[in-house]
Amino acid sequence: MTIKVLGYAAQSAQNPLAPFQFERRNPRDNDVVIQILYCGVCHSDLHQAKNDWGFSIYPLVPGHEIVGRVISIGSQVTKFNEGDLVGIGCMVDSCRTCSACESEQEQYCENGNTQTYGSKDRYDQRPTYGGFSETMVCNQDFVLKIPKNLDIKAVLPLLCAGITTWSPLRHWNIGEGSKVAVVGLGGLGHMALKLAHTLGAEVTLFTRSLDKEQDAKNLGAHHVVLSTDEDKMNAVSNQFDLIIDTVPYEHDLKPYIPTLALNGTLVLVGYLGEIKPNSIPMIMGRKSIAGSLIGGIKETQELLDFCGNNNIVSEVEMIKIEHINEAFERMLKSDVKYRFVIDMKSLPKA
Amino acid sequence: MTIKVLGYAAQSAQNPLAPFQFERRNPRDNDVVIQILYCGVCHSDLHQAKNDWGFSIYPLVPGHEIVGRVISIGSQVTKFNEGDLVGIGCMVDSCRTCSACESEQEQYCENGNTQTYGSKDRYDQRPTYGGFSETMVCNQDFVLKIPKNLDIKAVLPLLCAGITTWSPLRHWNIGEGSKVAVVGLGGLGHMALKLAHTLGAEVTLFTRSLDKEQDAKNLGAHHVVLSTDEDKMNAVSNQFDLIIDTVPYEHDLKPYIPTLALNGTLVLVGYLGEIKPNSIPMIMGRKSIAGSLIGGIKETQELLDFCGNNNIVSEVEMIKIEHINEAFERMLKSDVKYRFVIDMKSLPKA
Ligand SMILES: [Zn+2]
Ligand SMILES: [Zn+2]
Ligand SMILES: [Zn+2]
Ligand SMILES: [Zn+2]
Repeated sequence: MTIKVLGYAAQSAQNPLAPFQFERRNPRDNDVVIQILYCGVCHSDLHQAKNDWGFSIYPLVPGHEIVGRVISIGSQVTKFNEGDLVGIGCMVDSCRTCSACESEQEQYCENGNTQTYGSKDRYDQRPTYGGFSETMVCNQDFVLKIPKNLDIKAVLPLLCAGITTWSPLRHWNIGEGSKVAVVGLGGLGHMALKLAHTLGAEVTLFTRSLDKEQDAKNLGAHHVVLSTDEDKMNAVSNQFDLIIDTVPYEHDLKPYIPTLALNGTLVLVGYLGEIKPNSIPMIMGRKSIAGSLIGGIKETQELLDFCGNNNIVSEVEMIKIEHINEAFERMLKSDVKYRFVIDMKSLPKA
Repeated sequence: MTIKVLGYAAQSAQNPLAPFQFERRNPRDNDVVIQILYCGVCHSDLHQAKNDWGFSIYPLVPGHEIVGRVISIGSQVTKFNEGDLVGIGCMVDSCRTCSACESEQEQYCENGNTQTYGSKDRYDQRPTYGGFSETMVCNQDFVLKIPKNLDIKAVLPLLCAGITTWSPLRHWNIGEGSKVAVVGLGGLGHMALKLAHTLGAEVTLFTRSLDKEQDAKNLGAHHVVLSTDEDKMNAVSNQFDLIIDTVPYEHDLKPYIPTLALNGTLVLVGYLGEIKPNSIPMIMGRKSIAGSLIGGIKETQELLDFCGNNNIVSEVEMIKIEHINEAFERMLKSDVKYRFVIDMKSLPKA
């Protein structure tokens, strides 16, 4: 038995997204079934639809920033009830037994976590399909509670862009007295500014265009530095405990490393590929370059609760699903403030 | 007033080292005057003599692994007496007031530490000259006590090669239960094996030639892995808490990063220049690449005391100073086990 679901899929790297009917598994004992209300649009969706990373499986239904309502629960589900407002991020399962899973860092599961889309289910080997669709079936352990006080449409990007910046902020102990810089002001960057600011850090945005200055300040930046201006960059050398680099395409890291403080870290959260830093400023100040991947489920719930308590949401632009290919085009030009969110009511009726 | 000193110097990047008479300052109130007994030969000496890094000042007297006896002390010296056996490493002064200096990390002095050679003294602006010479004058705060139980000729490399590997081992909290890998088996690498082993870590040497297997095991390696063998490298993926990369020339980091454990760090201590890692394994396991520079004075004394207590010294090959240019040639071919040490009795008499 399966559930028939309508969604939007890419049939190949060359095809635009288009309506697609597919099946989801009937809920297992620990599954919840969710009616999807909204789904955020992430750069990964675009990369995977076009097979930019070379591992896409087609047909591919993107979407890993999902909010919806529980419409039924399996017999062993204890964490959720019908009617609950819930979220799903980038993962829907993991091995549960490796040391990463045991330390609640399922994103780093040594056996590979099960991605919300483009993976294979660990039990029945069926492909996973994402949130550009009407219904989701997910093990309760990978479902998140959404704080009731927040605008739910604007909560969505927390589930990927938010947690991707929150996890390094927490891992590197950012708080009062810390100095944080953010590179890039897109979906990830705008969340990094808000979260670092609310954690009490002094926050700087590095940007290649001062157009963004006022927006960045509204989002929580105390300072905006033009990264193409060598004098301005020299003026902030040896300062930052953490630089969160959100840029998703190839770019030069050399200007940023010298701005790290002694023992500081530049963490890459957006770019997958070869980097070419110079080791000299790293050695001269025990500076590090690291990578970081989303966050664990417990950490994601912690972020959602933090945002509920501090009234933090993303900035979003609502779209209908029939405009998703146009939205992808605009994302390539960074023409979005700061995240597209699809209203699932716009799905055609089956 | 000055002290006339005989040493060996490079007069330019093209000249070999040759005898050179020069002057050192008369001791200030906080200075000790040291008769140099032995001086180690470090890769930096070679690089600086040939101006490989572009900032050498000539005439250049190399040598920053120095052991000798105090022959006189200034009026304010409280830490040393005439006759004491002492050492000097890579630094002879720093600003003393920046946050790095205040936290006893003088190697990272924000105003630039004063190097043992090739720097300018902070007070009289005269050039500093290293340990390939008969006498040294140094502020007492940058002079180290040498444990009496160790073979002093074999203590020398602790002052640069030793502290350069000790500092990252301590900074990244290596001890019982840690897994450490070392890349490169030269002066730095052989100390890294000994120190990591004595700290209680499980130690692996990555090497490009299995010739070194037995030597590495004698020095403290539990395992030796051929880094050019892809299967062997895959077999040790996701293991190491810390990789100490001692290779002093350009090399590919890509094979090593996947062998880091979740949250592990590869620390570069030997190579100054552009590196080209791939961010994917860094992001997929929150892995870092860092740099590290020698160590602070307090940390260096801690290392010397640790080596005294655990009876650790370097492996050295003694040479006469007239063979220094030949020693440089052999170092370029890695033909030394593991550090040349100059016996200063071989200096020609003035
Ligand atoms: Zn995403
Ligand atoms: Zn796992
Ligand atoms: Zn050295
Ligand atoms: Zn200082």
